[in-house]
Amino acid sequence: MTNLLTMNELSNDEIFSILEDANQYKDGKGWVPNDTIFVSNLFFEPSTRTRFSFEVAEKKLGLQVLNFTAEHSSVQKGETLYDTVKTLESIGANAVVIRHQEDHFFEELIGKVSIPIINAGDGCGHHPSQSLLDLLTIKQEFGSFKDLTVSIHGDIRHSRVARSNAEVLTMLGANVLFSGPTKWQDPFNLNGQYVAVDEAIKQSDVVMLLRIQHERHNEKTNPFNYLTEYGLTKTRERQMKKNAIIMHPAPVNRNVEIDADLIECERSRIFKQMENGVFVRMAILKRALQQITNNQEVNGHVIYS
Amino acid sequence: MTNLLTMNELSNDEIFSILEDANQYKDGKGWVPNDTIFVSNLFFEPSTRTRFSFEVAEKKLGLQVLNFTAEHSSVQKGETLYDTVKTLESIGANAVVIRHQEDHFFEELIGKVSIPIINAGDGCGHHPSQSLLDLLTIKQEFGSFKDLTVSIHGDIRHSRVARSNAEVLTMLGANVLFSGPTKWQDPFNLNGQYVAVDEAIKQSDVVMLLRIQHERHNEKTNPFNYLTEYGLTKTRERQMKKNAIIMHPAPVNRNVEIDADLIECERSRIFKQMENGVFVRMAILKRALQQITNNQEVNGHVIYS
Amino acid sequence: MTNLLTMNELSNDEIFSILEDANQYKDGKGWVPNDTIFVSNLFFEPSTRTRFSFEVAEKKLGLQVLNFTAEHSSVQKGETLYDTVKTLESIGANAVVIRHQEDHFFEELIGKVSIPIINAGDGCGHHPSQSLLDLLTIKQEFGSFKDLTVSIHGDIRHSRVARSNAEVLTMLGANVLFSGPTKWQDPFNLNGQYVAVDEAIKQSDVVMLLRIQHERHNEKTNPFNYLTEYGLTKTRERQMKKNAIIMHPAPVNRNVEIDADLIECERSRIFKQMENGVFVRMAILKRALQQITNNQEVNGHVIYS
Repeated sequence: MTNLLTMNELSNDEIFSILEDANQYKDGKGWVPNDTIFVSNLFFEPSTRTRFSFEVAEKKLGLQVLNFTAEHSSVQKGETLYDTVKTLESIGANAVVIRHQEDHFFEELIGKVSIPIINAGDGCGHHPSQSLLDLLTIKQEFGSFKDLTVSIHGDIRHSRVARSNAEVLTMLGANVLFSGPTKWQDPFNLNGQYVAVDEAIKQSDVVMLLRIQHERHNEKTNPFNYLTEYGLTKTRERQMKKNAIIMHPAPVNRNVEIDADLIECERSRIFKQMENGVFVRMAILKRALQQITNNQEVNGHVIYS
Repeated sequence: MTNLLTMNELSNDEIFSILEDANQYKDGKGWVPNDTIFVSNLFFEPSTRTRFSFEVAEKKLGLQVLNFTAEHSSVQKGETLYDTVKTLESIGANAVVIRHQEDHFFEELIGKVSIPIINAGDGCGHHPSQSLLDLLTIKQEFGSFKDLTVSIHGDIRHSRVARSNAEVLTMLGANVLFSGPTKWQDPFNLNGQYVAVDEAIKQSDVVMLLRIQHERHNEKTNPFNYLTEYGLTKTRERQMKKNAIIMHPAPVNRNVEIDADLIECERSRIFKQMENGVFVRMAILKRALQQITNNQEVNGHVIYS
Repeated sequence: MTNLLTMNELSNDEIFSILEDANQYKDGKGWVPNDTIFVSNLFFEPSTRTRFSFEVAEKKLGLQVLNFTAEHSSVQKGETLYDTVKTLESIGANAVVIRHQEDHFFEELIGKVSIPIINAGDGCGHHPSQSLLDLLTIKQEFGSFKDLTVSIHGDIRHSRVARSNAEVLTMLGANVLFSGPTKWQDPFNLNGQYVAVDEAIKQSDVVMLLRIQHERHNEKTNPFNYLTEYGLTKTRERQMKKNAIIMHPAPVNRNVEIDADLIECERSRIFKQMENGVFVRMAILKRALQQITNNQEVNGHVIYS
């Protein structure tokens, strides 16, 4: 069983292997299973990028896709996540991709279902496929992570991306800076140093902006104040290092985290990140499905690698 | 036209032929059409098992799947079921699979559309693909239905499963017992005898539990009382015959119809039923689509058998 | 880039070329791409016919389909249409089919995304694929548009169909008549002459009924009065010319725009229109996708024509 639940279960070698596979897929090469494999996508929260880039990745690998939506399912009759996944396994799913609003939703599944679980985002917890596509985008740009300065801006506390990325970037040798409103600092995220926004931007090779997740907050954030106080304005962009890049997991709140004119500027890798998302997810699916096999049977089929 | 609307339209021979085909599919063999065939799944009620096992069955047969959901369709503009199905037929669907909240929804369609209709559950009425997968599961276990005792427990009155299964099991030579709260007895279902729960469980080769369908009831059922009074407790399980099995159409209300610890016990065929659901539905689709052909054209294509 | 946004961007030659391609597809012939092409369907309004006939068309062309629904997407987090389309482009969509409640929704996209946009209906604005299937149905019947009389009945003012069809039919040499309640006359639609319903029906080769779009009106229309005053009753049908046909874009409000008994009568081409919708949409997709290529790469793939 090769789940992908959080970044900390991956060794550096495994990370580099996924990034290499992703680059292979980008070049139109790489492993594709020979037989009929079903993957079910269970999205309990709205998603455009993650959901469709998993679906495109699955289809590029020739997998059969089962798109599950909670409101048309027996979840409406009180069925649990465990019973839902077990059901999909019984009817032939060879892997499940799950986004869920609960932190660590996967804990009720681990060791109890015998198909791989891929975490596509759990509550305010983890989002490993996002981290991996961020890493791919940085590696394509700079070749390595060693001694890069990456600043993460915004709502550090509620961000799956901040948590996962700070940890893995530190492990890979980068320096991580945090910046943003004091109320959104995260006392449990120790993989970075808090600095003022202007300082962070001047020092960074990568300026990584986070989305303000209005749907997870009670108080409203004033968009205009946010941009000028904490966001990436045109003035701040001019302070960036020569080859520094801008990243954002999207969806972007235009003119809140970033001046709208910068979203598609030369430094921006925001749409590049989305492109890379497909290739990284192909590599993640390969990792999950290839491990099942070793010439073992998967629901009556053999997957040849 | 080979609809599948209710169990009583099937002869014993036809039932055995479907079960045999299902076992063939289980072994990875069986008929697959050579040409492009479209099947549309119309689910007007939430469903996980039935909906996805039809989709998996369709994809394993190489069919093209059109997933219809009422809330994104012109049903919102008042379009009738008849006009919806007629539309799907016009644009190329070669068969439709329908779950609908109305009993006998199919009556407005019979004889008026020229593609097969497969009933995936109508209100409190019928659910023939569920009956067939139950039969397959019993036959795999005991080889035959003759002289088996099958007890059906719970809400006999509102259950599609109770109605269909009692009738067909009786026809195939089994003895059917009913058990459950008096208020849920069904005066119109004469294919079984009401007995006390402990008696039923002691005598049965198959203990078939029904889900309490909270969504179809007005008064709440007290879960704890239900389990001890009418459900399958661990104590009762110990009274079961040596080779007797436990079945449930799912979703299971854990610790209501059955003690949660028994759901995956050795006697339980609950997840086996789901597995069998895919194979039975492949056989049902074969029956529906093969009959259209005989080298006749289906929307411009010939299906070769 | 070959968008299809409104009928007025098509020359007569282009229209005839699409109709010819559609007839080829009807006969089971025609262009199919050799490589993996992704098309995303974005329906922001309910639809049965348009949505599923695009999906069937896509699948008959061997395209990979990404079905986008707004309520499961980041549109819920405030993402704009532009960012949504740009995202789908980044993750690999080679074309998008969009229905949207806003008139001219496509204006924020033109020139900014580099994949073709196919308009599947914008607010009360345009609906070119509907117009083209109407033209195909008329051409199959009469061979040409020259000197045909086509009357359009009902809510001229709010109808995408009335606007597009009046313009293109006039351009192709037909005479267009309008008929219906005075309050629904459209002062900006000058491609037809208003006449009384009985007069219009007697003169017409094609009686084209429009659906009353209750969802776009504030005041209720009395259905019974509508049929007798403005609709196609059996009495009026008997006044039609010998070979005249009845058309309706559907969904039909039975016994409002038309007596229910006439919907499937010999003159009716209502379900024929739906059949033709698939072939016309295959031709539209061919036009959109074939133009991208000329041996250029589409997201890493070459489309061979």
